[in-house]
Amino acid sequence: MDLGLKLQKPMIIVNFKTYQESTGKNALNIAKKAEKVHEETDVFVGVAPQIADITTVAQTVKIPVFVQHIDPITPGSFTGHVLAQSVKEAGAVGTLINHSEKQLKLSDIDLIVKLARENDLISCVCANNPNIGMAVATLEPDIIAIEPPELIGTGIPVSKAKPSVVTDTIRLVRQLNNKVAILCGAGISTGEDVATALKLGTQGVLVASGVVKAKDPYAIIREFAHASKRK
Amino acid sequence: MDLGLKLQKPMIIVNFKTYQESTGKNALNIAKKAEKVHEETDVFVGVAPQIADITTVAQTVKIPVFVQHIDPITPGSFTGHVLAQSVKEAGAVGTLINHSEKQLKLSDIDLIVKLARENDLISCVCANNPNIGMAVATLEPDIIAIEPPELIGTGIPVSKAKPSVVTDTIRLVRQLNNKVAILCGAGISTGEDVATALKLGTQGVLVASGVVKAKDPYAIIREFAHASKRK
Amino acid sequence: MDLGLKLQKPMIIVNFKTYQESTGKNALNIAKKAEKVHEETDVFVGVAPQIADITTVAQTVKIPVFVQHIDPITPGSFTGHVLAQSVKEAGAVGTLINHSEKQLKLSDIDLIVKLARENDLISCVCANNPNIGMAVATLEPDIIAIEPPELIGTGIPVSKAKPSVVTDTIRLVRQLNNKVAILCGAGISTGEDVATALKLGTQGVLVASGVVKAKDPYAIIREFAHASKRK
Amino acid sequence: MDLGLKLQKPMIIVNFKTYQESTGKNALNIAKKAEKVHEETDVFVGVAPQIADITTVAQTVKIPVFVQHIDPITPGSFTGHVLAQSVKEAGAVGTLINHSEKQLKLSDIDLIVKLARENDLISCVCANNPNIGMAVATLEPDIIAIEPPELIGTGIPVSKAKPSVVTDTIRLVRQLNNKVAILCGAGISTGEDVATALKLGTQGVLVASGVVKAKDPYAIIREFAHASKRK
Repeated sequence: MDLGLKLQKPMIIVNFKTYQESTGKNALNIAKKAEKVHEETDVFVGVAPQIADITTVAQTVKIPVFVQHIDPITPGSFTGHVLAQSVKEAGAVGTLINHSEKQLKLSDIDLIVKLARENDLISCVCANNPNIGMAVATLEPDIIAIEPPELIGTGIPVSKAKPSVVTDTIRLVRQLNNKVAILCGAGISTGEDVATALKLGTQGVLVASGVVKAKDPYAIIREFAHASKRK
Repeated sequence: MDLGLKLQKPMIIVNFKTYQESTGKNALNIAKKAEKVHEETDVFVGVAPQIADITTVAQTVKIPVFVQHIDPITPGSFTGHVLAQSVKEAGAVGTLINHSEKQLKLSDIDLIVKLARENDLISCVCANNPNIGMAVATLEPDIIAIEPPELIGTGIPVSKAKPSVVTDTIRLVRQLNNKVAILCGAGISTGEDVATALKLGTQGVLVASGVVKAKDPYAIIREFAHASKRK
Repeated sequence: MDLGLKLQKPMIIVNFKTYQESTGKNALNIAKKAEKVHEETDVFVGVAPQIADITTVAQTVKIPVFVQHIDPITPGSFTGHVLAQSVKEAGAVGTLINHSEKQLKLSDIDLIVKLARENDLISCVCANNPNIGMAVATLEPDIIAIEPPELIGTGIPVSKAKPSVVTDTIRLVRQLNNKVAILCGAGISTGEDVATALKLGTQGVLVASGVVKAKDPYAIIREFAHASKRK
Repeated sequence: MDLGLKLQKPMIIVNFKTYQESTGKNALNIAKKAEKVHEETDVFVGVAPQIADITTVAQTVKIPVFVQHIDPITPGSFTGHVLAQSVKEAGAVGTLINHSEKQLKLSDIDLIVKLARENDLISCVCANNPNIGMAVATLEPDIIAIEPPELIGTGIPVSKAKPSVVTDTIRLVRQLNNKVAILCGAGISTGEDVATALKLGTQGVLVASGVVKAKDPYAIIREFAHASKRK
């Protein structure tokens, strides 16, 4: 898979977290719906299932599969850790890093972004405020996702509740880095939220419960995809 | 799979860690060798591959597959965590807990042992000294593995270098708990090491580099299995 | 100070936490009130101020001063850690360990209890449920404090809301260890709560907001002390 | 104390770590020697004793006292944590943050730098490579100290062994921030090491064992001070 293709914009990444609705067989079901939307709309839709589900999901769908975390290690004597090479071989094309539910030491973020690059994995580093977005930009990941933790899972979209968080992040990050894709997350649950996020200057969204906990995940992803084409 | 069957003694559990030699396809190769030894000797041989390799290994071999770690969580809003339900559905029958390379808070060990029980996963809690073995015994896991961290990966077997660590652990644990299986680990690399471990009163061994880094993993596992039958 | 004297029962230990009301000069004020109650009632009242306040408090009052945490280290190349020797020299006679707001790895609890013993510091290990109390008892600390985290700071006393948590802890701990003092904490705010705790079989209480956030900390500590003598 | 005065350049900061030679009374002794050098040379010499020693040291000497770490908290229900207000009231004028022996999550570094600012404490954030130095610069601390962890305690000065680490850090940090003071650390043990560090463009050094473990700490600090005036 070509890196340029993989990073086609706008982009929607669905974080499956550890919800029951997105574990095991359920992970496969949502991934298939995401793939269907991609096929119908040609919009970039990535999925981030749990580590143990990477293999099955990646063998089944033809959309980009992200892992939710990798550890700052190279092959060796570690137990219970997530090795970049392992998830790569299992079929992942990228990884979330430093999600607000899995926050990392600065030196580990630095090391993991490098490990992702060396293993040809797309790095998507999460930042919980504009300052942290700027700090992260210096490490040159492929994607920065700005997510104010207080809005996660609320259904109150950051793009409406705190548009300045998004625009400040864009302004600060762009002082340093023109290439990195900037996503926004937290509370995204309607197509309008996605459209607003793009209008503010992002290249897409990182969503979780808005899709996974929806009655009809397919309908929601499709709504997001259509909204992202309106731009 | 019946729990009694699963815990047949003596037992050999091979921790794949994150070695290159036991990642992805290599994980599958070693797992098949372990399965072959089991078929030939009827000795219990379990394998503990990396999380992303659980699905493939569990779909391919008919020996017990352990995961190297699970997190103290139930389904919900967590990113990058390892959910018991997820590894169970992927085919794991048990989990290592508190390996010296993934040491946990006491309250998390307590919670994870309970989660393993609720999800019908065998719990194998590691302890790095006899006192900790006794503390862990109060939580009533299925297996306790005593591993002095200073001997891990050295090829110097705990059963020879520090037999009192093994016998003290057995004595302290048995004051509280007669059911739990007690394994010893660290430095096990020959059949004689395995035989000594069993003579000291353990029910088997937890090994890693002694098998994974061996020139001929099949020959070593077979040597271990034969030695464990000598008892 | 003689260890037997230091562990006189019943005992009241006041954890100052990091409340504004118990920082710096305020720490000194509350410590003086605790000392006054001790002088008037002869009941054991210990105080656990913040690390930076140990020196001043220990130089001013003649009651036992506990530190809230020490790290699992011996003298050496560590930055920002709390060394047992350091707090001992500053005047502490004991330390809290594994408070539910500072939970520790099992192997670190084991090491810190030993370090406390080697440095002649009273070890008070916190446990958030009866099982963990029993696990901790195997490590033979001087004191075990049972505190269900969900009641901390609520004013709902564990001794009333969950008496079985207290009696189960006592039963399990006493199977292993007859010497350790058992305290209960969380929600203790009246003399009656203290009396109930003692009737259930504990040797005292560990309190924080019930004293520190009270309008009149002196009156509350005195009420606790009188209640503990009723027994 | 005026902030401008406090940050007089060049500067020497001595991290006492948790060495026996710099604990308790020994901390006071070294602090007095540092003060004597300051009085004789007028060079800025700061000391960073252990948390429990802050009060005594700050009451005795008239040079800037740093704490080795503060936690990302405001006053409230925390046990065993280090509150900014507490160390400020104890006499500290600044804090080390993210030392390689106490590495922190990125979001905590961000929060601690803000807490330091709000409490009028000088913030000195450590970085273990140039990239991390640049990331840290976006958070606008008062001081950045670059310390390659592999050289800490070796006596091999970073200014000689890896001058490019120092110059790369300066180049990257100055792209973003002209005000922050840049120190270098790790392996500094002679006056020449200090002179080299300043020639490379730093504003001083962060030292530990080079002073604390020296036979004559006074002589070494004086040598450092004289070397720093040569510039």
